[in-house]
Amino acid sequence: MMIENDTICAISTPAGVGGIAVIRVSGPQSIGIVNSLWKGADLTSAKSHSAHLGELIDTASGGEVVDQCVATLFRAPKSYTGEDVVEIAVHGSRWVQREAVALLQRKGCRMAQPGEYTRRAVMNGRMDLSQAEGVADVIASTSRAAHRIAVSQMKGGISRKLASLREQLLQLAVLLELELDFSEEDVEFADRSRLIDTAEDIRNELSRLYRSFSKGNAIKKGIPVAIVGATNAGKSSLLNALLEDDRAIVSDIHGTTRDTIEETLEIGDYLFRFIDTAGLRDTSDPVERIGIDRSRKAMGRARIVIAVIDVSSPGVIDSIKAGNIASLLPSELTGLADEENRPGVIIALNKIDKLSASADSAVAELFNSDDSADSTTTSHAEVSATDMCTILLSAATGCGIELLRNAIRDMADSKDNDGVEGSDIMITNLRQAEALRQSLNSIDPLIDGLRTGLETDLVAQHLRETLSHLSSITGEIPSTEILNTIFSSFCIGK
Amino acid sequence: MMIENDTICAISTPAGVGGIAVIRVSGPQSIGIVNSLWKGADLTSAKSHSAHLGELIDTASGGEVVDQCVATLFRAPKSYTGEDVVEIAVHGSRWVQREAVALLQRKGCRMAQPGEYTRRAVMNGRMDLSQAEGVADVIASTSRAAHRIAVSQMKGGISRKLASLREQLLQLAVLLELELDFSEEDVEFADRSRLIDTAEDIRNELSRLYRSFSKGNAIKKGIPVAIVGATNAGKSSLLNALLEDDRAIVSDIHGTTRDTIEETLEIGDYLFRFIDTAGLRDTSDPVERIGIDRSRKAMGRARIVIAVIDVSSPGVIDSIKAGNIASLLPSELTGLADEENRPGVIIALNKIDKLSASADSAVAELFNSDDSADSTTTSHAEVSATDMCTILLSAATGCGIELLRNAIRDMADSKDNDGVEGSDIMITNLRQAEALRQSLNSIDPLIDGLRTGLETDLVAQHLRETLSHLSSITGEIPSTEILNTIFSSFCIGK
Repeated sequence: MMIENDTICAISTPAGVGGIAVIRVSGPQSIGIVNSLWKGADLTSAKSHSAHLGELIDTASGGEVVDQCVATLFRAPKSYTGEDVVEIAVHGSRWVQREAVALLQRKGCRMAQPGEYTRRAVMNGRMDLSQAEGVADVIASTSRAAHRIAVSQMKGGISRKLASLREQLLQLAVLLELELDFSEEDVEFADRSRLIDTAEDIRNELSRLYRSFSKGNAIKKGIPVAIVGATNAGKSSLLNALLEDDRAIVSDIHGTTRDTIEETLEIGDYLFRFIDTAGLRDTSDPVERIGIDRSRKAMGRARIVIAVIDVSSPGVIDSIKAGNIASLLPSELTGLADEENRPGVIIALNKIDKLSASADSAVAELFNSDDSADSTTTSHAEVSATDMCTILLSAATGCGIELLRNAIRDMADSKDNDGVEGSDIMITNLRQAEALRQSLNSIDPLIDGLRTGLETDLVAQHLRETLSHLSSITGEIPSTEILNTIFSSFCIGK
Repeated sequence: MMIENDTICAISTPAGVGGIAVIRVSGPQSIGIVNSLWKGADLTSAKSHSAHLGELIDTASGGEVVDQCVATLFRAPKSYTGEDVVEIAVHGSRWVQREAVALLQRKGCRMAQPGEYTRRAVMNGRMDLSQAEGVADVIASTSRAAHRIAVSQMKGGISRKLASLREQLLQLAVLLELELDFSEEDVEFADRSRLIDTAEDIRNELSRLYRSFSKGNAIKKGIPVAIVGATNAGKSSLLNALLEDDRAIVSDIHGTTRDTIEETLEIGDYLFRFIDTAGLRDTSDPVERIGIDRSRKAMGRARIVIAVIDVSSPGVIDSIKAGNIASLLPSELTGLADEENRPGVIIALNKIDKLSASADSAVAELFNSDDSADSTTTSHAEVSATDMCTILLSAATGCGIELLRNAIRDMADSKDNDGVEGSDIMITNLRQAEALRQSLNSIDPLIDGLRTGLETDLVAQHLRETLSHLSSITGEIPSTEILNTIFSSFCIGK
């Protein structure tokens, strides 16, 4: 990255018309430039963190008043960017916003690139790369859960976690040196196992962080939920019933990837992306097969699958009575059970309103419940009990829909088949996940090397690589000097 | 208006996602409420006009950090509303904006009504009604000219003008008293004419202000320009040619009244609303007649009319050579010449690219120009020369379009047939125009009364009414006490 030290400006508030808009000016000339367009208190002598009412004037057009506004000063280094910053709150008309920026440009400001303020904050040591990515995620977050992860990252949660891991790696380097110093003396060395234990602790923590990406990314982008089942089982009606109360919120969220994904919906703290799949059935129609293939792929990506079954279909009640719900599920679903990231499954027994009274009570009895719309957990030969539940409902009448919403929310809350429970630090960013994967790729041969007595130089190389990949996450790649200090104390040839 | 003293909050920046959003909190509890959700410096002891970095925390959920933000304090009465105000700059995600407002509401803030901050500013004497309307106009303004008028109004331009007129009216009241005191002594009173002169000066100024509404309103809402002419004269092509470079800006302006108005376009400092009218010709088709009636009405409202004439049509060149352009204009246009607010007329001689070389040079010669695309002013029996110009152009090739744009801009700049030149104070608001009309309705009988020696009580009543209507513009209706003071010094029975 190149260090820029010109003065930049941009409208920092959302595009459009509003009561006020804020124009942010950052750089060594920011206070002087704004002051040259300012009628009011002398900003050049104003204190940091002070707000001033005044007028923005167009000196070129004989001092025409562009707007009455409030300028707030943040002097370097105590500003967002670490540079002198002036934030000008103008009236939020399109014309004023456009004109104020044009004035600043005429006085020498350059229009800021996307993210340039945050980039300068990183360059000036106000935050690291991971925190900068957290800032972007905070702004993009559309649910409480996504926001919580982003705020934690912005506040340096990941940075501190990685700093601690780096610290442990540096200690490992010291231990490594110690072990190697004594190895030639052929002493049975008690610390050998401690060395390997430390390395394995670090690897486990890296692995946990890496695996959190799958869940973290789903929370950030919306947890994918596939709705599957035979044609006419009521998949679309079920989606509509789920969305009914929240259509306004749904349409309020922009930029959602379309594709097979139909709708997004907030339930509890999470954003869910519902995939309304084409009916899953055997067919020789080539066009229909394309839809079915797409459904299978969507199901493969989904973290939650809602399998919709029409309980009023012939034979369904008998299968349920026989304790054989598995036979009703699409074969693709049972196949998923072997995969590592298998989704949670909610079996939605739909159309209970169409059951005869006797069948209804028979079903209710099976689920040991007084209320036919209650939910319960049923065991299944090929899917673990905690990842599966069955709900009786009717998309047509809305009966049981609230239970379904709760089940979806609870599954997002508790689903821990990725093994990342017990920590609030979660990776949501592909770049960071990739760096962690590379760290793991380096630490595995490091551990193997320790076990097999690999050449010191090669072990040290793996350690250096692990550190480098970890540091790339926060952008704080240890300088060659620090690495030199660490590894220069090693004997030559070791 | 009721005086509210609860604490209100609202997002003051435009709706949507951006780098930052500002939530404004105003009222006696504002600082306390924000401080109760604040991790950082104690805001209750912070100085006015100071900015503080901190965290907005959700105390209900165990102190979860909603966002890192900057809170800026403005203590009463030195704030926009005149109350204690806290402006919280949060990250501009939908979720953060929604959650921050929800937090404030849970702590007792009420969501502000539209304009409620400005209303409180008026209630607390920070500005008057006319200035408040100026604020709304500043935010809504979409052109430099509209913005200039709005800023002048926001800064109290109209208020000062009206204060000066009120002052003169009060002096008139004193003179009136003096005159009446001496009238019983049957002295020939030199000041009688001075009294009437003063009243007439005030009336002229009121009248000038009132008449400025037509122009001011057109500038504010976009100056209506009708494009008229026979079918196939090239009206739509001309509009498209005008819009070509600026379609992006055009589509950027929302809320434009549709109806017969097709497009808006900024030229120079002004916003223009182009009315592409249906072809004007005699027809018996009832549906076509509706379109033609609409054209005539649009032309009646227009401040500029572009009359498009196809110079390649049979006989047109001959009419031009014969100096008889008038015969080519729609009859409706010449009829307009008698109206008070008659529009400026630009005669667009279109399709010059279709002329034969000889006809082309003949036309060019007629206009005494080397360049056939130059503009010139031609006199016309029924339309004054300053309000009319003729331009040779081709909508198809773009030749002469720039000249047309300049002509439209110049006409907006210089058009003074409403007699409001020489003043930067302009009325743009219907409510204010109505109050001025009522003031004029009261001052006319006042002047008549002075001339005819009307009963003092009745003259005083007209004076009081004039003052009252004027004061309603700024919302500063003189209190009964002031009026009592003025009129109590009058003798009883006078």
